This record gives sequence, C-alpha cells and structure tokens, in this order.
Amino acid sequence: MPPKPKTAVSPTREENYPEWYQQVIKAADLAENSPVRGCMVIKPWGYAIWENIQRVLDGMFKATGHRNAYFPLFIPKSYLEKEAQHVEGFAKECAVVTHHRLQQGKDGKLVPAGELEEPLVVRPTSETIIGEMYAKWVQSYRDLPILINQWANVVRWELRTRLFLRTTEFLWQEGHTAHATEEEARVETMKMLDVYADFAQNFMAMPVLKGKKTEGERFPGAVDTFCIEAMMQDRKALQSGTSHFLGQNFAKASDIKFLDESGQLRHAWTTSWGVSTRLIGGLVMTHSDDDGLILPPKLAPAHVVIMPITFKAENPGAVLEYCQKLAAELRAQTFAGRAIEVELDARDLRGGDKVWSWVKKGVPIRLEIGPRDMAADSVFMARRDKATNEKAGVPRAQFVASVAGMLQEMQDNLFARAKAYRDANFKVIENEADFRAYFTPPGGAKDESDGPTPIHGGFAIAHFNGDKAIEEKIRQELAVTVRCIPLPGQVSGADEAGKCIFTGQPSPQRVVWAKAY
Amino acid sequence: MPPKPKTAVSPTREENYPEWYQQVIKAADLAENSPVRGCMVIKPWGYAIWENIQRVLDGMFKATGHRNAYFPLFIPKSYLEKEAQHVEGFAKECAVVTHHRLQQGKDGKLVPAGELEEPLVVRPTSETIIGEMYAKWVQSYRDLPILINQWANVVRWELRTRLFLRTTEFLWQEGHTAHATEEEARVETMKMLDVYADFAQNFMAMPVLKGKKTEGERFPGAVDTFCIEAMMQDRKALQSGTSHFLGQNFAKASDIKFLDESGQLRHAWTTSWGVSTRLIGGLVMTHSDDDGLILPPKLAPAHVVIMPITFKAENPGAVLEYCQKLAAELRAQTFAGRAIEVELDARDLRGGDKVWSWVKKGVPIRLEIGPRDMAADSVFMARRDKATNEKAGVPRAQFVASVAGMLQEMQDNLFARAKAYRDANFKVIENEADFRAYFTPPGGAKDESDGPTPIHGGFAIAHFNGDKAIEEKIRQELAVTVRCIPLPGQVSGADEAGKCIFTGQPSPQRVVWAKAY
Repeated sequence: MPPKPKTAVSPTREENYPEWYQQVIKAADLAENSPVRGCMVIKPWGYAIWENIQRVLDGMFKATGHRNAYFPLFIPKSYLEKEAQHVEGFAKECAVVTHHRLQQGKDGKLVPAGELEEPLVVRPTSETIIGEMYAKWVQSYRDLPILINQWANVVRWELRTRLFLRTTEFLWQEGHTAHATEEEARVETMKMLDVYADFAQNFMAMPVLKGKKTEGERFPGAVDTFCIEAMMQDRKALQSGTSHFLGQNFAKASDIKFLDESGQLRHAWTTSWGVSTRLIGGLVMTHSDDDGLILPPKLAPAHVVIMPITFKAENPGAVLEYCQKLAAELRAQTFAGRAIEVELDARDLRGGDKVWSWVKKGVPIRLEIGPRDMAADSVFMARRDKATNEKAGVPRAQFVASVAGMLQEMQDNLFARAKAYRDANFKVIENEADFRAYFTPPGGAKDESDGPTPIHGGFAIAHFNGDKAIEEKIRQELAVTVRCIPLPGQVSGADEAGKCIFTGQPSPQRVVWAKAY
Repeated sequence: MPPKPKTAVSPTREENYPEWYQQVIKAADLAENSPVRGCMVIKPWGYAIWENIQRVLDGMFKATGHRNAYFPLFIPKSYLEKEAQHVEGFAKECAVVTHHRLQQGKDGKLVPAGELEEPLVVRPTSETIIGEMYAKWVQSYRDLPILINQWANVVRWELRTRLFLRTTEFLWQEGHTAHATEEEARVETMKMLDVYADFAQNFMAMPVLKGKKTEGERFPGAVDTFCIEAMMQDRKALQSGTSHFLGQNFAKASDIKFLDESGQLRHAWTTSWGVSTRLIGGLVMTHSDDDGLILPPKLAPAHVVIMPITFKAENPGAVLEYCQKLAAELRAQTFAGRAIEVELDARDLRGGDKVWSWVKKGVPIRLEIGPRDMAADSVFMARRDKATNEKAGVPRAQFVASVAGMLQEMQDNLFARAKAYRDANFKVIENEADFRAYFTPPGGAKDESDGPTPIHGGFAIAHFNGDKAIEEKIRQELAVTVRCIPLPGQVSGADEAGKCIFTGQPSPQRVVWAKAY
C-alpha cells in the first residue's frame, strides 16, 4: 500500500469517492444531517452559496419576464389525485398531515388529535395546487401567459439520503407558466433550459449537456422533460436542472381554460422547471480536491480572506490596520457585477489551522499578512486553484488592481478543467460488449454496497432504439441509465442515425448513458 | 344616509373597516385565500413587497453580524415537549405529520400509509430543533456567540384567519442566538428590537412603540418578550415584531452547554426574534385609503408607472419611444440606495381602467404621457399621497431630476401622517369609567360578530398594578389587552409611578392598552 498522501480531507477521491464527498462538506462546514430523518441543516457557509445561487438565478428569471409568488405548503390529497401519472409518481414518498393538534393521551404523553377530514400532503412539487389557482385567474387569452416562479421548500420521503444530493426536505425554485399555445409553451420550456445551462456553465463553472429524458425518466405527468446533465469527478452524471413541457395534462387536470381570440374555450398549455440545493452537491463534486472545497469565484461567499499574522509583530495593531485598509480597498473593487467580498480573519488561532480552515472552505484567494509584508507594502498570496504551498509576495497596489481579473481567470480555469475532465471521459461506444466493459469497475464491484467502487466509466455515447425493457435491463444489471437524448449539436457524433448497440434495430441518434446520482 | 362616496374601494374604512381591508388587498392584487384551509396565496405584487422587506431586513441582520442558515421543516414531537411552556403554547395548533406515503385503500382511494414511529410537527417556530443543533455545535466559550437567522415558512393551525394578519402558514424570519452571558443575550434582544423599530419607522413609514409584554402575552418559554406595536387606522394595535430574551430555558431544554474560560460547564443564554408577512398587513392598514393601497416608496415594487396614452396619437410608436427613453432616464436615478423601479404599462386597456389599476396598487408616482406631453417634452404626473385627480404637467428634465427627492418626501409624509393619526388617538386615562367609555363603540357593539364596529378608542395609557386576573377580565369584557409596558422614553407620561386605575394599588408606570389584531 502506498503511503497515505498528506491531504486535508481523508479519504481522497481515489480512495473512496462517496466518503470523500461527505468529508469535504464537513471540512467546509456546509451542512450536516439533522436528527430529523433525511432532513439536513444547511450551515451558514453552505447557505451563503445558496443565497448566491438564488440571487443570480432570480435575476435571470426576472430578466426573462418572470415574477415570484408564493403558494401553500400543503396540497389536499384529492388535488394530487387529479393527474394519474403525477400521483403515481409522488404518492409513494410524501409526508402526510393527518391531524392539527397534539393533546395529552392516556399515558400523559402527547398524541395527534383533531383529525383532518381530508389528509394534506406536504408539497413534493406544486403543479396541482398552482394549477388550481391558475384556473381561477385565467378566463381569457388576455390573462395569458402567466409567468411565475416560487422559491420554496419541498418534501419527498427518500429512503436513502445524501447531503444536498438527495434529502427528504430540500430547497428549490419551481417555475410554473401557462400559455395560450403549444408553440409558446415549448419556447418557454427551452428558454428556461437555456437559462439553467447558462447558469451552470457561466456561474457554477460546471459544463452541462442539454437533452431530453426518455419516457422512463420523465417527470410524472409531463409530455417532455428536458434536463441539464453534468459529470462529477467520479464520472457519474448529476441531473442538475429540469424543464418540463406539460402539454395540456395539468391544464386539463386543474381545468385551466380560456376564451381564445375567436371566442373558443380552450385548455392552456403549461410548463414547469426547477433547480434545487442539489446544485450545491454538484458544485462540490465538480471542483473540489483532496484538500477540500473549491469555489467558483462567481458564487463564493467570500472572494478573498485576509489573515493577519501578528504573533511575531512588534505592533500587532499596525498589521491589523494595514489589513483593514487592504480589505476596504478590495471591497471597492467589483467582480462579476458585485463588490468583492472579503473576510478578515483575526481569530486567535494557530496560523496553520487558520490557513487550512480557509483552504477547506474553498475561498479563491488567501492572503497572509505579517509585519514584513506590511513593511514591503505587499501581500503574501495563495490561490485555491493552485497547489496549497504555492504562495507568492505581490506588491499591494498590483494585487488590488489585478484581483478582479484573477478571479475571472480562476472562474475560467475551473470551467476549462472540468470540461477537460468530462471530455476525457466521454466515449462513443459501438457494441454491447464494449459498453459492458466500460461500465464494469476494475474489481467487479457493482455498487456501493460492495464497498467503495474505484472510479471508472464515464459518459457512453451509444445508439439505442428506445426500447423501455432494454433500458430497464441495463439499469438493473449495470446501474446505468440513459441520462439524456442530447439536443442537436450538444454531443459530437450523437446526431447521426445508426443501429442500436443492443438490438441492431434502427436508432435515430446516439444517446448519453451513465451511472447517475 | 349620505350619498355613497365615489371611491375605488368599497366599503370605505368608515363603513366597514375589516371588509375594506380585504377589498384593498383584492384591489391591489396582493394575495388571496387558497383552497387549503387558512393558507394564502401571495400574488406577485404582494410577494414583491415581501422581497423588498426581506432585502432590507436581511441587510440589517448581516450588518449586525448575523448569518443565514436553514433548519428542518419538521420537529419531532419529543423536541417540542422538552420545554413545558413552549409545548403548552404550540401543541394546540400544529400540523402533525403521521405518515410518509399514500396507498390505495379498499375503496380504491388513497389513504395514508407508512405510519411514523414518532409524529413530526410542522415547525410553528424553531427554538427546539435549532437548540438541538446548537447543543452539538457549542463546546467552549470560543464557539459563542452563535448569531444565525433563518428565512422560512411556519405553520400554526389558526381557527380564524385573515390574509397576512393571521394565516395557518406564513413566511417569516426567525433569528436564534446563543451567548455566554446573560448580559450579552439581553443586549442582543434589545439590539434586534431596535432593528425592527428602525425598519418599521424608516422603511415601512409605520410609527411603532417599543415595549415589553406582560406575562400573559409572553412567547411560550421566554423570560421576557419585547415587541413593537403599531396603530392601524381603525385604532387597533398590531404587534409587528417580537424579540425574546429566553434566558437559559431553551438552553436547558436542549442542553446547550459550554466550558467557560475558567473551565466551568455552563448553560448558554439564548434569544429569538422574528417578523413575518404580517408586516404586509400592517403596511396596508397603516397607509391605504378608500382608493386602495398606498405604498411607502422605500418598499414599493415600482416607484413610477408610465402609461403611454396613444389612442389619439398620429404616431403611437413615437409616444412609446418617448416613454421608453423616460423610463431609462428614471432607472438611472437612485432612491434610498437602489435604482428607481419603473413600470411601463403599454397594455391595450381603457385609460381610466389603467390609471385606477395603478392607484389601487399604490404606486407612488403615476405618469400619463400622450402626444401633447411629448411635444412639450413634459410629463403629466400624479402622486399617490395626494388626491387622485390632482395632476400636473412638469418639464421632463425637471421631473427626472426631482424624482428621488419627491419619493423621499412621500416617504416622510406617510410617516408623518401615520404618526399624527396615532398621536391623536393616544390618551392618558386616569380611571376605570373613562377607560370603559373609551373602548365602548358608539353603538355598543363589542366585536365583529355584531357586525362592523364603528372606529373608536385608540391607545389608552393607564396605570396598572400587573394583576393577571384583572388583565383577563378586561380582555373578556372589552376585548382590550395590555399591548406593552412601554420602554422608558417611549410614551410621554408613561414612565412615572402612580396608582392602578382598576385597584388603586401602586403602579410603577403607565402601560399601553388597546384592542389588537
């Protein structure tokens, strides 16, 4: 066995990727499991990332004409039942409210009381309750389109949970729109998919593929589900956002009808689209290394941390003052449209511990400043995208003038690095044997229940005739699924017709297969 | 009967205040009741006010050293039971989750299944679940203080609900802090009360009194509850925000302990503080008139609405272009630290209907712009704080240059008007007969079940010995309660000692009595 590498996070990605993920989250203090089954606590550093995600996305939604509103947490059971596939999809994993108070039972303990006439479900998604309201609001074509988004918590009773990636309660946004024509609703669906892809790539620095889901992976009740799929560093896919064209399914279930310009009564066409706190899991798994979190500068809660080193200083106050002035100069700079965020960490803590705490939290730029730096009017700088011990003295004025450019460079580097990794683990596969070999781990272990699986596989681009039975067989045997049918131009070579690698039948295009979160 | 006044909202405040309130909300399209009992839908215009409230308060919380985090929606029943008064206060009105799926019953309908071992309560407030986490996070005095806020939805199963003022689900923020000393926790409690008062007065333009609650009105489990109380236009009080000094009650219940500097194990001291979407109800009832909503400019989703009047124009496109240029000029101006928000309403709608829709929505400044205004390079302006038909032509450049100042003037006017109304309905009362007369409506009706009560009473400032039985008797007989024991200097004449008007016993100071929401 090789000597254990000196890394801030243990195990490393190679040693045990799922455990590495948990340890990065712990080391960065992003979140932790709560005593409430499957529900997490998002701690301040993790929540600050979510606030940045919200701020940017909210601006994008508003720029595309949407406004926010808020609908009830509870959905009457009968509403969920209105759309057959929808209830099928969500009834198996929902929190059910049956009573509206607690009262003393015979043993003196509190028991549920005040039983409800109709049970309420804590929203797993809000198509049905929002549809009910839209039906009231829409009478004429003049009332359309309705372009509304909601930031909310939702609950899906998951059996196996993992911080950010799959939790019983999670935070998300859900856009819900209603339109007079199919064409307009389809345009909306694709527009929001593009917004998600833009956000993922230009803010999260996470390359994504845009595609359509197969029938088996579709949102329950949707006509078409489109998605963005990203590759994590274990080469598994993460579905990072979805945009659904709902056709008239929910409009019919909720009776959203309008008089068109010719006086005809018609059902509206609706869409819904969402991303969630799962994005934070994707951010962690795309960029972080064995020393902890690495944050894309555009979403970092702090861009620069300044650590005064005063233990050897004759005049610690002067060093602190130099740091405060520097912080003010940096805060006067802007990056990506907002003031640069600076943390000045003057905690009474060993220098090494302090530095490592910020490495693990993923702050893009670290400055250590002692009496000598002050005397030289310089800063001692390290970048989170370079080796931890790669540090350099830089004249103060030069650093201040270049900080915004450096952050943009880091943002670009992170994207380029992630894209290079993904592209290196993309493979066009032409026959079933190669396909099976590609997805079989070196030791032969099939899933995590056999212990940590060595990182293997990637995205396989292969012809497929669309047969649901084969899709299910592959899922059972290899834990591999069709992640998406890529949109034209998304994947080199995917757009051409050919023959299904499993059946030899005609295939209109290649699709993307992978193991997935 | 006098002829019915021509107002945009009917009934008027004088005719039926509670119904006027509902109609203002409807006319401004702020919110409506949902089919889920007691839960409201906050519509885009109402939610945009909430977004402004959040933005400003969030900035204030961060400026005072707090960070946001997120804790679970669900609270295990046993946690609620840990603090005796707390469970007593909340068990009677909580949504209880007892099952985690729905499955087909014998009649083919879905019934709750998968019963939970321990029921979960949908959080009515989060002291107990947050306390559980703090107990894990706090080991040493170095881990203190913890200064965290959460923006969240909460549920309290109210029997009688009213939009914004009292709903089963509502949105709020809840700050939860833990400290090493009583002194520090008390300072925090008062600091956040001051933040709330600052926000109410300087952003909502709503004058408030700061005071302490009597024992009967205290938060369940708190040592002291402090509040801000505002007077609505029906002279009832609205509790608009509360800050609780929790002593060591919740720290003991949740076992939040730390080693102090001398190595002693001690319980922490905690606080909590919150405001909710109820503030929007307060905003509506403080400023609106019989033509609908009036928005304080600092919280208005739009400061200026521009309505192109093109039906007589030879060149409607030119008018529209003039309006767009004007909108851009206005958006380049700032008011209260943010860009001026402009709505350009080019809907195909009758001019009168369009104007009235914005009057009812409370936009501070309305501009109607037709070919003649364009030719004169001017704007035709009306202000929401003046009579609806008071309109004037103003040169365009002059208007643009003065718009920020005008908004500030309106902000100040609204506050001054609300304060004058409150001060006119404040009365020092020296004996029980006067007290009873003051709170008895002209017709003798006691509450709304007798039909609308004429506006009467106000804030009575009277000596009280603090006897809980008397407080309860007054509540039952007159529906009047002690709104607060005002802090020193808050109410002229309240700080002096005297004799209780009900018992003749010594009273350390006068307190504020009123009917309340």
